[in-house]
Order: sequence, then structure tokens, then C-alpha cells
Amino acid sequence: MGKKYVYSFGNGKAEGNGKLKDLLGGKGANLAEMSLRGVPVPPGFTITTEMCRLYWENGQVIPEYLKEEAEAALRRVEELSGKKFGDPSNPLLVSVRSGAAISMPGMMDTILNLGLNDEVVEGLAKLTNNKRFAWDAYRRFMQMLGDVALGIEHEKFEKKLNEVKSEKGVKNDLDLDADDLAKVVEKYKELYKEEGKEFPQKPEEQLWIATEAVFASWNNKRAIKYRQINGMDKMGLLGTAVNVQMMVFGNMGDDSGTGVAFTRNPNTGENEIYGEYLLNAQGEDVVAGIRTPKDISTLEKDNKKAYDKLINTMRKLEAAFKDMQDIEFTIEKGELYFLQTRNGKRTATAAVKIAVDMVEEGLVSKDIAVTRVKPADIEKLLHPAFDKEEVEKAKYFGKGLPASPGAATGIVTFTPEHAEELKAEGKQVILLRPETSPEDIGGMDAAEGILTSTGGMTSHAAVVARGMGKTAIVGAEEIVISPKEKTAKANGITVKEGDWLSIDGTEGKVYVGKVKTIKPTGLEGDIRKLLDYADEVADLGVRVNADTPKDAEIAKGFGAKGIGLCRTEHMFFGEERINKMRRMIVSKTKEQREAALKDLLPMQKDDFKGLFEAMEGYAVTIRLLDPPLHEFVPHEESAIKEVAKSVGITEEELRDIIEDLHESNPMMGHRGVRLAITYPEIAEMQVKAIMLAAIEMVKEGKTVKPEIMIPLVGKVNEFTLLKERAEKVINDLLLEHQIDVEYKIGTMIEIPRATVTADEIAEHADFFSFGTNDLTQMTLGFSRDDYGKFIGEYVENGIYESDPFQHIDRNGVGKLVKTAVDLGRGSNPRIKLGVCGEHGGDPESIEFCHLVGLDYVSCSPYRVPVARLAAAQSAVEFKRGKKVNK
Amino acid sequence: MGKKYVYSFGNGKAEGNGKLKDLLGGKGANLAEMSLRGVPVPPGFTITTEMCRLYWENGQVIPEYLKEEAEAALRRVEELSGKKFGDPSNPLLVSVRSGAAISMPGMMDTILNLGLNDEVVEGLAKLTNNKRFAWDAYRRFMQMLGDVALGIEHEKFEKKLNEVKSEKGVKNDLDLDADDLAKVVEKYKELYKEEGKEFPQKPEEQLWIATEAVFASWNNKRAIKYRQINGMDKMGLLGTAVNVQMMVFGNMGDDSGTGVAFTRNPNTGENEIYGEYLLNAQGEDVVAGIRTPKDISTLEKDNKKAYDKLINTMRKLEAAFKDMQDIEFTIEKGELYFLQTRNGKRTATAAVKIAVDMVEEGLVSKDIAVTRVKPADIEKLLHPAFDKEEVEKAKYFGKGLPASPGAATGIVTFTPEHAEELKAEGKQVILLRPETSPEDIGGMDAAEGILTSTGGMTSHAAVVARGMGKTAIVGAEEIVISPKEKTAKANGITVKEGDWLSIDGTEGKVYVGKVKTIKPTGLEGDIRKLLDYADEVADLGVRVNADTPKDAEIAKGFGAKGIGLCRTEHMFFGEERINKMRRMIVSKTKEQREAALKDLLPMQKDDFKGLFEAMEGYAVTIRLLDPPLHEFVPHEESAIKEVAKSVGITEEELRDIIEDLHESNPMMGHRGVRLAITYPEIAEMQVKAIMLAAIEMVKEGKTVKPEIMIPLVGKVNEFTLLKERAEKVINDLLLEHQIDVEYKIGTMIEIPRATVTADEIAEHADFFSFGTNDLTQMTLGFSRDDYGKFIGEYVENGIYESDPFQHIDRNGVGKLVKTAVDLGRGSNPRIKLGVCGEHGGDPESIEFCHLVGLDYVSCSPYRVPVARLAAAQSAVEFKRGKKVNK
Repeated sequence: MGKKYVYSFGNGKAEGNGKLKDLLGGKGANLAEMSLRGVPVPPGFTITTEMCRLYWENGQVIPEYLKEEAEAALRRVEELSGKKFGDPSNPLLVSVRSGAAISMPGMMDTILNLGLNDEVVEGLAKLTNNKRFAWDAYRRFMQMLGDVALGIEHEKFEKKLNEVKSEKGVKNDLDLDADDLAKVVEKYKELYKEEGKEFPQKPEEQLWIATEAVFASWNNKRAIKYRQINGMDKMGLLGTAVNVQMMVFGNMGDDSGTGVAFTRNPNTGENEIYGEYLLNAQGEDVVAGIRTPKDISTLEKDNKKAYDKLINTMRKLEAAFKDMQDIEFTIEKGELYFLQTRNGKRTATAAVKIAVDMVEEGLVSKDIAVTRVKPADIEKLLHPAFDKEEVEKAKYFGKGLPASPGAATGIVTFTPEHAEELKAEGKQVILLRPETSPEDIGGMDAAEGILTSTGGMTSHAAVVARGMGKTAIVGAEEIVISPKEKTAKANGITVKEGDWLSIDGTEGKVYVGKVKTIKPTGLEGDIRKLLDYADEVADLGVRVNADTPKDAEIAKGFGAKGIGLCRTEHMFFGEERINKMRRMIVSKTKEQREAALKDLLPMQKDDFKGLFEAMEGYAVTIRLLDPPLHEFVPHEESAIKEVAKSVGITEEELRDIIEDLHESNPMMGHRGVRLAITYPEIAEMQVKAIMLAAIEMVKEGKTVKPEIMIPLVGKVNEFTLLKERAEKVINDLLLEHQIDVEYKIGTMIEIPRATVTADEIAEHADFFSFGTNDLTQMTLGFSRDDYGKFIGEYVENGIYESDPFQHIDRNGVGKLVKTAVDLGRGSNPRIKLGVCGEHGGDPESIEFCHLVGLDYVSCSPYRVPVARLAAAQSAVEFKRGKKVNK
Repeated sequence: MGKKYVYSFGNGKAEGNGKLKDLLGGKGANLAEMSLRGVPVPPGFTITTEMCRLYWENGQVIPEYLKEEAEAALRRVEELSGKKFGDPSNPLLVSVRSGAAISMPGMMDTILNLGLNDEVVEGLAKLTNNKRFAWDAYRRFMQMLGDVALGIEHEKFEKKLNEVKSEKGVKNDLDLDADDLAKVVEKYKELYKEEGKEFPQKPEEQLWIATEAVFASWNNKRAIKYRQINGMDKMGLLGTAVNVQMMVFGNMGDDSGTGVAFTRNPNTGENEIYGEYLLNAQGEDVVAGIRTPKDISTLEKDNKKAYDKLINTMRKLEAAFKDMQDIEFTIEKGELYFLQTRNGKRTATAAVKIAVDMVEEGLVSKDIAVTRVKPADIEKLLHPAFDKEEVEKAKYFGKGLPASPGAATGIVTFTPEHAEELKAEGKQVILLRPETSPEDIGGMDAAEGILTSTGGMTSHAAVVARGMGKTAIVGAEEIVISPKEKTAKANGITVKEGDWLSIDGTEGKVYVGKVKTIKPTGLEGDIRKLLDYADEVADLGVRVNADTPKDAEIAKGFGAKGIGLCRTEHMFFGEERINKMRRMIVSKTKEQREAALKDLLPMQKDDFKGLFEAMEGYAVTIRLLDPPLHEFVPHEESAIKEVAKSVGITEEELRDIIEDLHESNPMMGHRGVRLAITYPEIAEMQVKAIMLAAIEMVKEGKTVKPEIMIPLVGKVNEFTLLKERAEKVINDLLLEHQIDVEYKIGTMIEIPRATVTADEIAEHADFFSFGTNDLTQMTLGFSRDDYGKFIGEYVENGIYESDPFQHIDRNGVGKLVKTAVDLGRGSNPRIKLGVCGEHGGDPESIEFCHLVGLDYVSCSPYRVPVARLAAAQSAVEFKRGKKVNK
């Protein structure tokens, strides 16, 4: 019997401590720890989890020796509090709570105010000078005990309560006075009898009924199920502990009170105690809003001793938990008690400031600081947002996928041409399209925001908008966009050309009318500091997907270290170039094609030179032409007429070419390396342009690190053939210019076949860049342009946890990535590995990239800050032992 | 020095034997073995491979002890032959040949007639009574020795020869007489001198020059390269052996002769000696066609002794090699010599008959017999073919992919409707389309053959034609088919509607005009026997991909044991059904859809009942609806009008629906299990129809084994959700009918993601059927409808060895299949595994299926016999130690 089953705490002492979670449960161990650290918690005791196990092993009986041990502990609480359990003149009331080693829903709820009975209620009324409060506490206790411990249905108590209300002709609980509540207590007693029970007047009896209920709840169906689902049934848990703790009351006169406080300002992050309180009040009164709480600073005048202790303890708590604390306190007759402390919620601004301040104060390491800000918070700070109050009043129109964050408002237009015209007139425009195509780029650039009704997170509209840092919502299936009728319809509302519309790309929500936007903070001050910490902490490099010097400059400002993906095709859509490109495509002979390409060469060279200059000193990865040629030819009748004329062939001929270029499944068609193999001249021109630009850089004494990337490789032969051809071009140029330029040749890994043969490819490649958009498309067989038709239902049914184009599908696509990493590094340990799909800007996917061992991620310019933070967080998670499979 | 480096053979004896390949080389060991077995081979000796090694180790010198040993062996040859090396009156001439343990090109060619010199040539002329022959032999020997042993360029000899020809004013070697050839010999001697050499008159010297040349050739560049490429440099080969063998002459008078013979008739397979010969002639004379050879049977009269020995030896050889032998023989002065024996080439008919006969004669096991017939031969015997002579005369039009074997001729039409009309008029039609779609089925059925200009081996046209057993060529990119102009153009020829065209689906070739076809043998007699052997030998089962009872019947006749894939969508294209299907698709509510499906239910039930009856006793795997719904809606204006009317909606509404169903990449779109998840009613109707049909079967006392297959599963949750729904429907039905029916629920494995998570899926699935068409599409990122644009160039450039839709890509797709097999069997050892992609009918892919451990393959009806044979051959290969990676 020598074994100890009850652990006391209170008054700066405790028999347990914070490490004894297995034995005391999480809650019990924390209470002990807080007490040990001098935090004035209401005294109490914890019955161990071991006791719970014994209870179940020994036929569900509370042994006498436990009762003796617990009652001794209760006596200590009485001593510390000066109150007495069951004594009407100065009653000790307690709360009883469950608490296992691991937090777990499904077990018994809290029982408050245990110790009340017909006599004690009168004493409490006198002590608080608040009869209504006392009777309300009593009837609530009866209800809790009956419901959670004795199995009397909650509804039955409510019915009795309603009877009293209707007798009095009121609807609201608050309209019942003390006498009414006394009537309720009578009715509750009747209910107990109706259920074959008797409400226990003896406090000790109440205590053991409650304790047994806690033990019993360990094995109720919900708890067992929860443990099974979460694999906790194999963890060797003993059971739940029972925490019995003194109740304190802030409504015992003007020397009492209650309040909440933060160790720092949760709105601004300023290092100042922030909070409010009410004298002679209970917690509910602070929340109810009937009385106006006072600012915490005035407590010094009201009760200097309590104030000083509060401030000191809060400082101590923050130092102990090394994070901003949100506490609840009660002062009972001049005595301060902490009811709760937890890490406080805060705004994005505050999160950044607190993290940086705490590093500067020496309170936390940079490792910790970077985990204290959510990547989404950085996003919020860097993009415009709608004014909260205005949004609440705005008329909701519909929703779609949050493709590119920010908030934008403007007048509606349905064609890119019109968008450009309106922009030229100085107007703000929102462009609405069923889906966008490369021909729409001009209009997208002119618009403040873009809204499409089809496509997913990696659709053309989404990718381009993110690249432009432009607010966009895509795949808003519920909004029917008709460019013909120039209307958009959803939820019974019709929006017409010229109407104002506001779109929130962070939330994916659309509002009718004009909503005020708030400008973003920008990358300065504390954000800049935090992201510098992030760079120190992270192992994963962050590059940018940028096609223009402008984008590269922006990204460099955001901290990108190199370009991970330059999509050269975007360079061909300019007014002047698209025609040259088209002339190349309609060429009937290799010679014609080469002539057209010759015109494009100097332009491409200048493009690359610009990128090299903008990213001087960093690697610049340039992908050879990837999309199928039909993306460059016109598809509308009027355009065909025009283009035929400008490239000098008949409409009939052009139509034949367009027809010939048509593909049933272009994503798996004639594109990427396949184009380069069948039209070697195109790839040769591009390689030439890259190297000529690089040679110019070197001649100007600048550092340049070109990386030539071959897309869509599925078999090593494709890569070696292209590499051989490229090296021939390069060697000829270097010889001609008598100069040496370091360069790399690598490939995208985006075809499933490439992942399982990555060892063969890695033997010849300097780097792999995982193109997880295409890899997701083909591994899952989800066309990014079409999966919108079913992905909603898929996520709703839990078939996929989330959109696999948004967060990488670790168990499927991730397995192939891991295979490729292992095979690739196996045959070429020096290979550089990165990711340049849209996942490169998604924190959850970035974590995967880190865990799987990549060297860098590359994302759109505006996501670079987010990626830097996510990369740092992943490094910390990894140090903490996180593995690839979540 | 006691070691032996020279092994003699001849006269029914030999110092070596067939097992000493490492030491004597393949050729030397065979000669020894033949001699030991009493085959009269010209006597000779072999210098060992070990000697070759010593030669290279000891500074490339022929040691004296070898010369002594070899000369002793030469004396034995002289004794056996009664001739003497270098003796003009009765000269022994020899051949010298290289021969390593493993056959290997790149080494020295044969040198014939070694031993000739200025004196011996005169003797040979006298002996053969053929002066021209002797001088020609002499000048040829000089040329061979100079070229291959002494490094004098071949062209220089040709130049000298041409000088003599032009002096005489003739163009042809045959126009030179003995005196002219003597002049050539003089000129050759001059050439030797010009090159700083002297033609060796001494036969011994000739012998050692030739021997050394053989040794030297072991390490020439070509040979080294060849060994490297083929990994033979690591096999510990010693070197090459040198075979020296007596030359024999059939032109030494009427007691001499030469001929070729087969142990069985190579055309019919009859068990009779078959061959021809000429008296007093050399081998060239038989081939040259100047004299008409005599049938082998008449040799009995000409030379009974030689004839008897020939027949006996041939019987012995066939018994020894256990295969039909093709031999060459020479009779020199009454003495019979076998110059060569090898397995004889034979026609498809003969191959089958010989294989079956040899089993019945007890000569070979069934294991061996099934390997003696090429699967392609079975194909030839079961499909019509063009008359060979007519084809040679036919006008070639162009070529495409041989999508469905056979030969067909008919008049050209460009629309399916027209094809049906012409067929109704009793005409034979060839249908030409750029590509086919499900709407063309009627016309395809009416046509004798189908020709398309796009698409690959698994395109719609190819799959459907194979299913129908209809000759088809697809992806004939060089043929421009214009349904508008009603012309097909290729290679400068224009074919118009109404013209005759002939297509060979086995070869992929198209001819203008009418070519006579030859009817196939059919599955009877020896073929049936052979395939019965195949079934006994094979481990892999063969099922059929069949959608109709008719196809199932045909396939059962061909030996299919079950249906591996019933594509239910093909059932919806019938006149009456397509409208119901369309009504279902255009439904605006679940209720409308259910009403339309209710109409379809009894039809589907009858479909399945028909299949179950046709395949009674065997498993029938039915795939739930797979294609995207837009395949069922009309796309042409006239059809839209009609359909709108018949389903009772406006054209506008129908157009909106069609637009809404449009997908950018339908292969990766809303199809398969995705349809079943979003429209549960469709799958439910199908499951109901399957089980109702099965219940009827059971009630009628028939055996039924339904297998419900869920297509396009990528994640286990998709499968479990569908399985749960299906089981609910099934349990309700079984309860309602108070009956028990065994059934299975499994899935297609065709999405790459499914292969890497096959363990999870297998926990719940009764079977996997690999859909290697889609798996190839997505693993390689090759759209089967579009890859025609580059696959030609890919195969030409050796990027892929062959079309991956034709022969499974073992290193890519194959790896994923193997992963899925291993993971699947790991978590569910009882799971049944099969393949139902087009690879299921391809012998090379079937071998892979066997090696990777599948249980069955399923293919189109007309490929069942081929698959049965291929399955048997794979089993034999596997027993012989073949592994998955070729």
C-alpha cells in the first residue's frame, strides 16, 4: 500500500512536476510545474493515471486506501485555502477534471462548483453577497453532475429549466432571479428522483461520484474510438488522471476580481502587459459585455499587491514558456490566482515583431523565432487585403480556388483587349474569363485581378497571376462566366460588364461592388530581420521562377538566390516575337525554319542577358522551349486571317497547319524534349542565345552561372542526345570566342518514367529540377485543366486530404520524388536537386522538399518570402526529428 | 610442354567433343562432336583458344612446339584423306577459320583453298578436269590470304581483276576463262610485290600466315569493341581457336557432286527427306541456276552408297539435334562429306506440323515443341494474307502501323455511313479516316479493313479493329486522308472514293488496286494440337477482352479461358441505347438521371447475361463505365440538332452541356472511378445489372464468376468507397433474391500512383488488372492519340527500341508493374493479377507478364491463340533461367 496515488500542489510547492505527464496526465503535471515555479494556482491534487488502471483492473471499485489518501490531500487544500469542504460559513468548492498523458477529446467534461448542497449554497450567497450567483452555481453543478457523472440526459435538465421559464413567462436564463433558480434546483432534485437517483448532499460523496465518472469515461466508446483512430491504443497509456482543484471566486467583494492579460500586445507585438479586468466579478461578466472592463494598468491603483504579483508572475511565465502568454486570473479576497496560461494568439504584425524582439532580447534562438510566424502571416503582410469591416458588409457573390493571394477591386470586363483599353483610360479592371490562354497575357497584365470559372491551382491563369503577383481566383465553378453575353452569374446574382467587383485571392471569395483594400506592409523592418534569420536557419535554398528581368529584380528584392526556372516560351508572346515564332512554326523546310529562328536569336540573347544581369552572381536555370507549338498559333477566325497575312501563307494553309498541330491530350503530346528532338534547330538557337549572353557577361567581367534545363525527359537517351547536341553548339561558341564559361546541363524530372530511371539520367545530368506540376498530373492522371470537375467532391469525401496541386501528394507523387532522389544521388552524389513546380511556394510542400533532401525550391516572385520562412521552419522541424511521411 | 594444343577430328573419331567449347571454340567443338557421332565431316584439326592466349602473352610469336603438333595433325588429315599437302598430283587443300567459344563477328573471315600454289593449281585443274575452276580457286585464295591475313586492301585486288576484264572488254567475272584468270594470278603476284610482300608458295608457310592472322584478329578493334559492348570482356574468354579442315570438291567427275537437303519438307512439314543435288558440280552451281538440280530421291540411283549414308546420317542428325536439319553435302570421288548442318528454316504451316509430329514421334517434349513455332506464324495461319506473287506486282501506296493483322481489299470510302450503305449493296469496302471515334463503329464493322492516318497501336481504330478481328493500319502519317475532298494522297498518288485499295495489316503496307487474298487455315488440326500443348506448358492463363457474346464465343473457340476485360461503354453505342445514355447525361437532376438509368438497366443485364452464358464456368471481368461522358454526346451540328430533339432539350442547352463536358486532356480527366464517384447512380446501375444477370444464371443452375472491375483507381480511398457502395447494392440484391453468388471486386492498375501504393489497394482488392495502355500513357507522358507525331523519330534515333504501346517498356512501365506486383502480393498474397492492356496480346510483353509473375493475360479475341503460344514459350524461357530484365 506504500505506493503514492495522490499528488498535491499549491502555494509554491508540489509533489509532482512537469515531467510526470505519464503519471499525472498533461494537466496535472502542468499544474504541479506552475505551482513549483511560484505561479499562484488554486491549490489542489491529482489522482494518478495508475489509479485509473487499477480501477479498471480491479472491477471498477474505488479502493478505500485511495479515499484516505485523497481526503488527506483535501485537508491540505483546506489548510492552504483556509476554507472547509462542506462548511457553509466558508465553503471550499472544487472543480474535477480528467487529464490523460496526451490531450484527448471524448472523455468526461469538467465538473465545477463541486461541494455545493442545500446548506452550502446559502453560505455562498452570503459570502458573495449574490444570491442569484449562488443558486445559479448550484443548479449548474447539479446539472453537470447529473449529466456527465450519473447519466441523466442533458435535455431532461433543460426541460425542467424551461418549465420554470414558461411559468414565469420569460425566455432567457438571465431573466430568472435567485428564487426562480431555487425552484429550478427543486425541479432538478425531482428529476434525479424520476431517474431513480438521489442528488448527493454530502460533498465527499459528490467527489467520489465525480472521480469515478472520470475513470469510467476513459473507456467510453468515444474515447476508445479516438484512441484507436489515432493509434494511441498501442502507446501503453495507463488511463486518465483526475484533477481536483479549489474553485476561486472573483465576485466576493471589491477586494476580488477577474481578468485576462497578455504578456505582450497581441495586436502590435509591443513588449507591454496588455489586458483588462473587472472588480467583484466572475469570468462570465468580463465576456458578457454588460460592464466595461478596465485596462490592466489601473489594477495597480485598485490592488497594488495583486498587480505586482500579476506582472511578476507573467514575466516569469513568459521567460519560462519563452513565448507570449495569454493568462486568466482571479483575485479572491485580495489573493491572486492564475487559472490558466497559454501561448497567446496574435496578429501577423505582432507575430513578426514578437519573434524578432525575443531574439534581440536573447529570449529565444533564431531557430525558435522562425517557427513563431505562420507562412500565411507573411503572405498577409505582403499582399493587399480587404478592410475587414467593409468585407463584412459586402455582398457575397461566390467562391473559387485562392490561386494568387491579395485583394483587388475594379470594374468587370470579359475580354483581355477590353481590359487593356480600360487600363489605358486609367481604370481599375477585374478580368473575368472561363479560362485564360497565353493570348490573354496582355489583358491579365492590365487587370488588377483575374477570376476564372475553370482550372486548378496550376492552371494557366493561376501560374501566370502568381508570377505577376496579381490577385487571382480560379476554378470558381459556381460562377458562370459568359464572354458572349458579357455576364457572370452566381447565387442568383448577375454581374455585367462595367459593374464593380472585388476579389479576395487569399480567401478565394468574390464580392459584388467596391471593397476598400488595405496596402501591404512590404518587406521591411522586422519582416526583413525575420527572413534574414530564416536564411540563417534554413538548409534549403530559395530561387525564383522568373521569365523577365523585372520579375528577377522583384524576386531578388524578396531574397531569392537565383532563378530556378525561366520559362522561355513566355518570351515569345510579345507583339513582335509571336509573329516570328509563328513564321518559324509554319515553315515548310528546315531552311525556312532556321531563317525564322535566326531572327529570334538576338532577341533571345538579350532576354537571357537581362536575366543574367538581374541575378548576377547567382545560378540562372533556363528551360528550353516546353509547350506544344499549337499554343503559339491563333485559334479564332479573325486572328487566323491576320496571322496568315502577316506570315505570308494562305488562310487555308494556316488552317491546315493548325489542324495538324491539334492534339487530343496536349499535356502528353509533342512538347518539351520531344520538340527539341524533332526540331533540333529550336533548341540549338536557344542554347546559342544562352551561351552568347553568358559570353557577353564574362567579357564584361561579370559572374554568370547559366544552367540549361531540358524539359519532359522520360528516358536517358533523350537527355544524352540533347546534351550532346547542346555541347557541340557550346564548344563551337567557346572556341570561336576563345573564352571559358562554366555551365550546367540538367533536366526536369516531371515524367513518372524519369523518376524510376533517375539513376540512369543522373549519370549524365548536372542537376534535376522536379517539375511537380506535370509529375502530379501524370502520376495521378489528373489534368490540371480538367480536374476541377471532380476534385471538389474528392476533397469533400476525404479521398484526397487536399488539392494535390496545392500541397504535394506525399504518399504518391512524393514516393516517386523520393525514388528519384535516392536513385539520382546514388549514381551521381554531386547532382544538385531542386523543385520548380508550383509546390515550391507552398509551405507544406516545402517541408516535404526539405525532408526528402532537396537542395533548393523555386517559386513565383511574390512567394519567395513565404518560401524562405517555410524553408527555415522545415529545417527546425527536421532537427526536431520530423520524417518524410508526415 | 606436355600440354595439348591441337585436337584432331575426322573419320568418326575426334580428340575433342561438343562440350569443349571454351577450349575448342563453338565451331571446333561442334566439328568434333559431329565426327564422334559418325557424321562424315571432312577431317581436320582445331588449335585451341588457350594457344591464342599464349600467342598474345608471349609477344605474338607462334611457338615451334605448336608447329610440330599441328604438322603432326596435318599428317593425320593426309592419312585420312589419302591426299598430301602441297602435292600437285593429289593435293590436300584446307580451309582456315576462326572460332571463339561464343559466336562473335569482327574476327577474321574464312580462308578457303589454302595449299594452292603455282604447281598445285595445275594438279587441281587436272583432277577436276576444270582448268577455269582451278585458276579461279587459286586467284580467290590469293585474294583472301592477301586481304584478310596480310593487310592488302580488297579494292586493290579488285582493281587488278578489273584491269584484266577491261583488257578483254568484258564486264562479268564469268566471262573470264582459265587463261584470263591465270593472268589475274600474275597481276596479284605483282600486287603482293607492290605491297612489299611475296606471295608464299609454300603451303606450310600459307598455313602459319593464316593461323597467325586468326590469332591477331582476336584483338582487332572491331572484335574488342564488340566484346566490350556485349559485356564479353568480363567473361574470361581465352581467345579464338583456329579450325583447319580439308577442302572437298564435288566437281571431280561424275562420282562427285554437291547438294542441299532437309530432314523434313520445309514447306509442308511432311516427314520426308527433301532436297536437290548436282553431279560433278560445286556448291555455287546449285545456286547459280544454270543447271537444273535433281531431286534428292534420284541420288539413290546415281550413288546408292552415298545416298544411304546421306539418309542415315540425316536421320541421325535430326535425332541428335531434335529439330529439322538443313544440311549441305559434297560427294568427292564417291565419298560423302557433310559440310554443314543447322536447324532448317520452314513455313508457318511446316513449323506447326513438324512441332506436333515430333511430339507424337516422341522426339521432343511439348515444352520444346511450343518453342518451335513463332507466335507470328500462328498469326499468319489465322488471318487472310495477300497472294505473294500478286503483292510483288502491286503498286505500293504507303505504310502505317500494323495495327490489326490480316489482308483486306475493297473500294475506298471516307465516311462510316457510306461504308454501311456500300456493304448493304454487297460491296467490299475499305474505310479511310484521319482517326476513328466511337460514332464510327457501324462503318468499321461494315468495312473489310480500316486505314487511319493518325493514332498509335492503342488508338481507338486499332483497339476496335483488333477486337473485331478486322484488318487495320493506323497512324499512316505519310498518307493524307481528307474526308472533305474524299481523297487520300501519298507518294505522289491520289486515291479517290470508289477506287480499289488493298491493305496488309500484318505488314502495315497499303497497295493501290485489288490484290488477291488467301484464306487462313483456321484453328484446326495441328494448330489446335499445338495450342493444347501450349496450355499444358503455360503457367499464365489467357483470357479475352470481349464486350459482346459474339466476341466471347469466338474467343472461347480460340481457347480463351474467361473474359479479362469487358468494356461496358461499348454497349452504349447501339442505336437504341445511345439515346438513353444521352438522356442520362443531359439529366439536370439525380432523379432524371436515375430514371434514364432505369431504362438502361434491363438492357445491361441482358448484355451481361449473354456474356456469362458464352463464358459459362469461367471468370468474367466487367469494367464499370470508363470513358468521359463527352464521348457519348454528338459533336457535329446535324447530330446536335437531332439529338437535342430526341432527348427533349433545346439545341442551345445541349450545346452548353457539350461545352461543359469538353476537356483539355480527356485522358487525364473526368472518367473511370472519378465518374463513379461523382455520379454514383451509374455505377450502381451497372453493379445491379451484373448481379441480376449472375443471379439469373445461378437460378438456372449455371456456373457464373462475375468480377467487378473499378477503373482508373489512383488512391485506395477511391476503391474502398466504390467497393462499399457496390457491396451495399449486392447485399441488398442477394438478400432480396435469397441466393448466394460468388463475386470478386478488383481494380485496374493503370495510374502510376496506384502502382506505388498498390500495397494499400491490395488490402481491399480481390484482383488487379494492369491496364498497360493507360499506364504507358501516363508513365511515359505519351498520349496514345498524339505520340504518332514523334514516335517514328524516337524509334529511328534509338531513343526507344520499339513502340512502347506495342511492346511493354520493361525498364520504365515494367518497373512500376513489378513494384505493384511486389507491393500487392506483399499485402495480399491471394490477390489475382492480370493484364488487360493491348500488351496482353503481344508475345514480347506476354513474356514480361510471365516473368513478373502475373496470373493471366487478356487480349482481343483474334490474338488469343498467339497469346496462348507466347504464354507457353515464356514458361519454357523462365524454366531456362530467363529474368525480368531481358
